[in-house]
Amino acid sequence: MAMVCLSDFEAYAKKYLPKFAWDFFAAGADECSTRDENILAYKRIRFRPRMLRDVSMLDTRTKILGTEISFPVGIAPTGFHQLAWPNGEKSTARAAKAMGTCYIASTYSTCSLEEIAAAAPGGFRWFQLYIHRNRAVSQHLVQQAETLGFQGLVLTADLPYTGKRRDDIRNGFRLPPHMKLKNLEGAFEVCEMIPFFHCLLDSSLTWDDIHWLRSLTHLPIIIKGILTKEDAELAVRHGAQGIIVSNHGGRQLDGVPATIDALGEVVEAVQDRVEVYLDGGIRKGSDVLKALALGAKCVFIGRPALWGLAYKGEEGLQDVLRILHEEFRLSMALAGCASVSEIGRHLVQFSKL
Amino acid sequence: MAMVCLSDFEAYAKKYLPKFAWDFFAAGADECSTRDENILAYKRIRFRPRMLRDVSMLDTRTKILGTEISFPVGIAPTGFHQLAWPNGEKSTARAAKAMGTCYIASTYSTCSLEEIAAAAPGGFRWFQLYIHRNRAVSQHLVQQAETLGFQGLVLTADLPYTGKRRDDIRNGFRLPPHMKLKNLEGAFEVCEMIPFFHCLLDSSLTWDDIHWLRSLTHLPIIIKGILTKEDAELAVRHGAQGIIVSNHGGRQLDGVPATIDALGEVVEAVQDRVEVYLDGGIRKGSDVLKALALGAKCVFIGRPALWGLAYKGEEGLQDVLRILHEEFRLSMALAGCASVSEIGRHLVQFSKL
Amino acid sequence: MAMVCLSDFEAYAKKYLPKFAWDFFAAGADECSTRDENILAYKRIRFRPRMLRDVSMLDTRTKILGTEISFPVGIAPTGFHQLAWPNGEKSTARAAKAMGTCYIASTYSTCSLEEIAAAAPGGFRWFQLYIHRNRAVSQHLVQQAETLGFQGLVLTADLPYTGKRRDDIRNGFRLPPHMKLKNLEGAFEVCEMIPFFHCLLDSSLTWDDIHWLRSLTHLPIIIKGILTKEDAELAVRHGAQGIIVSNHGGRQLDGVPATIDALGEVVEAVQDRVEVYLDGGIRKGSDVLKALALGAKCVFIGRPALWGLAYKGEEGLQDVLRILHEEFRLSMALAGCASVSEIGRHLVQFSKL
Amino acid sequence: MAMVCLSDFEAYAKKYLPKFAWDFFAAGADECSTRDENILAYKRIRFRPRMLRDVSMLDTRTKILGTEISFPVGIAPTGFHQLAWPNGEKSTARAAKAMGTCYIASTYSTCSLEEIAAAAPGGFRWFQLYIHRNRAVSQHLVQQAETLGFQGLVLTADLPYTGKRRDDIRNGFRLPPHMKLKNLEGAFEVCEMIPFFHCLLDSSLTWDDIHWLRSLTHLPIIIKGILTKEDAELAVRHGAQGIIVSNHGGRQLDGVPATIDALGEVVEAVQDRVEVYLDGGIRKGSDVLKALALGAKCVFIGRPALWGLAYKGEEGLQDVLRILHEEFRLSMALAGCASVSEIGRHLVQFSKL
Repeated sequence: MAMVCLSDFEAYAKKYLPKFAWDFFAAGADECSTRDENILAYKRIRFRPRMLRDVSMLDTRTKILGTEISFPVGIAPTGFHQLAWPNGEKSTARAAKAMGTCYIASTYSTCSLEEIAAAAPGGFRWFQLYIHRNRAVSQHLVQQAETLGFQGLVLTADLPYTGKRRDDIRNGFRLPPHMKLKNLEGAFEVCEMIPFFHCLLDSSLTWDDIHWLRSLTHLPIIIKGILTKEDAELAVRHGAQGIIVSNHGGRQLDGVPATIDALGEVVEAVQDRVEVYLDGGIRKGSDVLKALALGAKCVFIGRPALWGLAYKGEEGLQDVLRILHEEFRLSMALAGCASVSEIGRHLVQFSKL
Repeated sequence: MAMVCLSDFEAYAKKYLPKFAWDFFAAGADECSTRDENILAYKRIRFRPRMLRDVSMLDTRTKILGTEISFPVGIAPTGFHQLAWPNGEKSTARAAKAMGTCYIASTYSTCSLEEIAAAAPGGFRWFQLYIHRNRAVSQHLVQQAETLGFQGLVLTADLPYTGKRRDDIRNGFRLPPHMKLKNLEGAFEVCEMIPFFHCLLDSSLTWDDIHWLRSLTHLPIIIKGILTKEDAELAVRHGAQGIIVSNHGGRQLDGVPATIDALGEVVEAVQDRVEVYLDGGIRKGSDVLKALALGAKCVFIGRPALWGLAYKGEEGLQDVLRILHEEFRLSMALAGCASVSEIGRHLVQFSKL
Repeated sequence: MAMVCLSDFEAYAKKYLPKFAWDFFAAGADECSTRDENILAYKRIRFRPRMLRDVSMLDTRTKILGTEISFPVGIAPTGFHQLAWPNGEKSTARAAKAMGTCYIASTYSTCSLEEIAAAAPGGFRWFQLYIHRNRAVSQHLVQQAETLGFQGLVLTADLPYTGKRRDDIRNGFRLPPHMKLKNLEGAFEVCEMIPFFHCLLDSSLTWDDIHWLRSLTHLPIIIKGILTKEDAELAVRHGAQGIIVSNHGGRQLDGVPATIDALGEVVEAVQDRVEVYLDGGIRKGSDVLKALALGAKCVFIGRPALWGLAYKGEEGLQDVLRILHEEFRLSMALAGCASVSEIGRHLVQFSKL
Repeated sequence: MAMVCLSDFEAYAKKYLPKFAWDFFAAGADECSTRDENILAYKRIRFRPRMLRDVSMLDTRTKILGTEISFPVGIAPTGFHQLAWPNGEKSTARAAKAMGTCYIASTYSTCSLEEIAAAAPGGFRWFQLYIHRNRAVSQHLVQQAETLGFQGLVLTADLPYTGKRRDDIRNGFRLPPHMKLKNLEGAFEVCEMIPFFHCLLDSSLTWDDIHWLRSLTHLPIIIKGILTKEDAELAVRHGAQGIIVSNHGGRQLDGVPATIDALGEVVEAVQDRVEVYLDGGIRKGSDVLKALALGAKCVFIGRPALWGLAYKGEEGLQDVLRILHEEFRLSMALAGCASVSEIGRHLVQFSKL
């Protein structure tokens, strides 16, 4: 079977992953409306492509928070990569480095931050943080990440509690016994059952806690999970250096907008004071182009990265990234853009349908 | 089979109820457009969730007409509960009391008001009234309800005649001989065939008759079945203390709007002079949150309550209410609301699609 | 099988009519978009029903061009009724008379005007006219209709040529040899093959020819097939007494609007100078109510009448009319209207979806 | 099987063509959204037909760039006609001539320009040009076309690189060894594998290169692939005599608008300074009428021409053109237009749905 587009990797993963693992990665909250909208919303955006521009030399590079990446697609934070591939996040880190892009490692990795850092030395990585009730755990992780060379801190803002994912409940989802949340081991006893988040995460977190976080690290802080202009403004005011427009892949509150639909108001609100990124629903290079046209500096892929891992580990994830890169480059060319800096709001319009 | 969400109860009820009973509960008028719209309309409403608010303490309590309920979901009036479970409305009353919410008992109950009151002493209940041509019957029922401790009178305004429900006609729907409309027994001879309403209900009822009703009782009067601002204004002017925005579950005039779509204009019209409630289409906790965001003080569930009864009687209905309660609490938290008073119009927007 | 709604008659006719006859009656032009839109468009119209009005006495009577009918649903002109039932248009005439409504007999009837008139003496009928190249034929028919007591002349304006109905071409549709276009027999040799219209109809017809028609008869002239305000204005100016908003059941130019969507602009254009009627897509009593709310004085049914004939001839068509009458009466009541005069534009709104 | 409409030819071609050839002709880029939108968009356009106009004499002739054609439908440039029929483009040329319309021969023809010219002497033809890195090749072709009597030069502007057509990649699409790109033979070594375009086409092409093209020939230059008003303005300013609004049949950048949706802004931008044509999605005569109503001077068919060839070569393509001609004539008549000059913007409106 030729792996031509990301859907091929999805089909492979659905076929070969254990059902409970596939279901966990695929899950959306409640009726999965937002999860599905993340994808459908792209189909309502139309390009206004420009012709007869010199697109013989194409430059897909961009910078996020000052660091260059080969093209504006990074790896979103997702947990439990060993469910997809035995080497787990180590493979993810290697693939991201090989493809010259950014990998946001999750607190809920099945490899430790040390293992991730060691697997791909010098790779460009951010660390995604859930803040636990036991603040010492979070403080330790933040400082460890900084020490290990992670270059940004991504604070997830949309998970005071875990969303209701029906299939996980039906499956009684839990990690297999041989997998561990390595970053949390030793720090305290982990309850492995879902919703284990309930007992560990600090649902009293507010914007003021960003000051505390800021006091722990020199790393730039990126807030993940913003969907409104009001919260975008608050993120800027509380010193965030970046915002990831995200609905957690549709896994938290079902009924929130597709990220590509929420992007516009966030971009307009921040007025270039900080960088805005997006995750959710990216399945083709043209989706990346649409997100950039609407103001995202970069996008991040979640489930497609896991499909790549499920296919062939590090190599499979590189295949996924390579396909996205090629498709993005082609889409740029066909839209008349020779470099990322030529991509702008003029390139798209929302279909009235 | 795990009962994870209300759809699981629906599937159970469809499988295990006799076809004529399932069809009767499921029926909508004509082509069931409105019945289905009641559910679909929620999918067109998008949340604008707010992040990083302290949602560690969640309070779902509210008050309707001065009485506290544990969360803003009550039991809508529906008839013939013995079709779903042998103990009928007695089980309904017990479940509502156990879950700390309001039960609106129907005129067409298969248990008498005395039986209902005795089954769950001290429960919070309202009585739903159809006004019959023989006004003495209605007067008796109203005064009996007041005596038995019912705390509100819900006048159904949208059934001068019964809507055309094709399946009931095809099935020749009638109550099994061993079930009785206990509240009407003895008062007069009941024709048990559908449309028995035609011969009994007073289709000449007008707003002026509310004065007559008012003269019979000290109970607050809630008008059920309002879908327009004009009628909302009339309800307020004629002394109603509450309005239930309802289309009778899509069982009366097919082609009227979904209740969640009609809610806004009613809320705007009454300007907080009376409380506004809603029934129809509530299937998830996030639906409750949307209705409250659009101005409902509380919602009522009809068919889902019957599915709960069909599953395990009192216990099954408690399961349904418990799931809705948990989902509503989680939705509040994920939207950034720690208490019901924080829910407001800012929380939602209508999708243009 | 219980005949509960018009769809039941449709299913019966589809099952029992010969395929070529079913296909002929069901046919729309090209891809049948307009035929299907005629029905779908009703689903986008929402009622604004009013409650607590005295609807104990319901009066569905109305008048068209001064003649009272029992309810505002007549029989649209369709050809070849013997394809549906052996007695053909004689049965149609009897059913219409029995139900107290108007029957528009088609030029392409398989019974003669004399036979139709004799079958139901004193019935309220209009005659539908196609104008032929041989004007003497048309003149004869018009004067015959007047003599026989037809009370109106319906000029079809939308068939200078026959629309392209793919199934009729595939089936090689033609009338069975034992059926005749009785109104055209003797006048000239009829080519029985479709598209026989091409050779007979006068495609040079213009508005000015209405003056010629007017010179032949004292009957009021109703123009059928108007879809725009411009043509509505022309119809009024050329002395039409009525307009039927019609797209020929979607059988002529595919891609024109549903009649219920075109009705508004025609009604607004004529400003009560003439009566406006509608055909196309009426399948339920609530459709009739919507059309009247949008300004139609009366609607006409085409295919449903044929389904009724196919079911049981005169009796079957009466069943169809009786169901529509009952559904219309119930819809009126549930919308809060006790009589046709209370139906108005306030009763409906177009869904934005 | 009767060939009644273009879909019949599509079904035939799908059944009888080798899969790789069908897939190649049918292919759209990525998810084929734009390919499918090209067709769907017509369904959202509604006619405003006018009645009682004299349509007894119908004239479908029009002129493009001064040359009369029998009706406003030409043959769009598509490659590899021998995949559809052994005689390839020679049959296409003959059919177009027989039907009195224009054929745009593709650079990627499997017959040479000489063969095409010789097959149908005196036929009205334009030549479609891809500009190669080796400009001498292009110069030779342009001058050869002019010498052979081609009357226009169509420069394709939307293919700096080939779009991503998944099925072609899966099929490993390549021309069978016995077929040749005759216009490119001898000039240089052709890599026959897809994407052979990548190595040959000049992706550095800009508007300025039109001056170079203009210097080679006296033929009028038509720019194909314009979808925005900005590019339409540039085309006019750079001396194009015509614009073909095209998205390459949805084969290039997936997500661009349907051509019928883009037509309006191009027509408005050029303000009659040059002629505007359209290709993409034409499947019925009424589609042609819609395109002309929105300002196209003529439309071109791509895939339907190939289906006609696949059915019966020259004769099959004539069948396709004849059906379109008849359907267009009928649509004109039913919309109230006796000649092409009567078709205008007043004839259509966009559905809000």
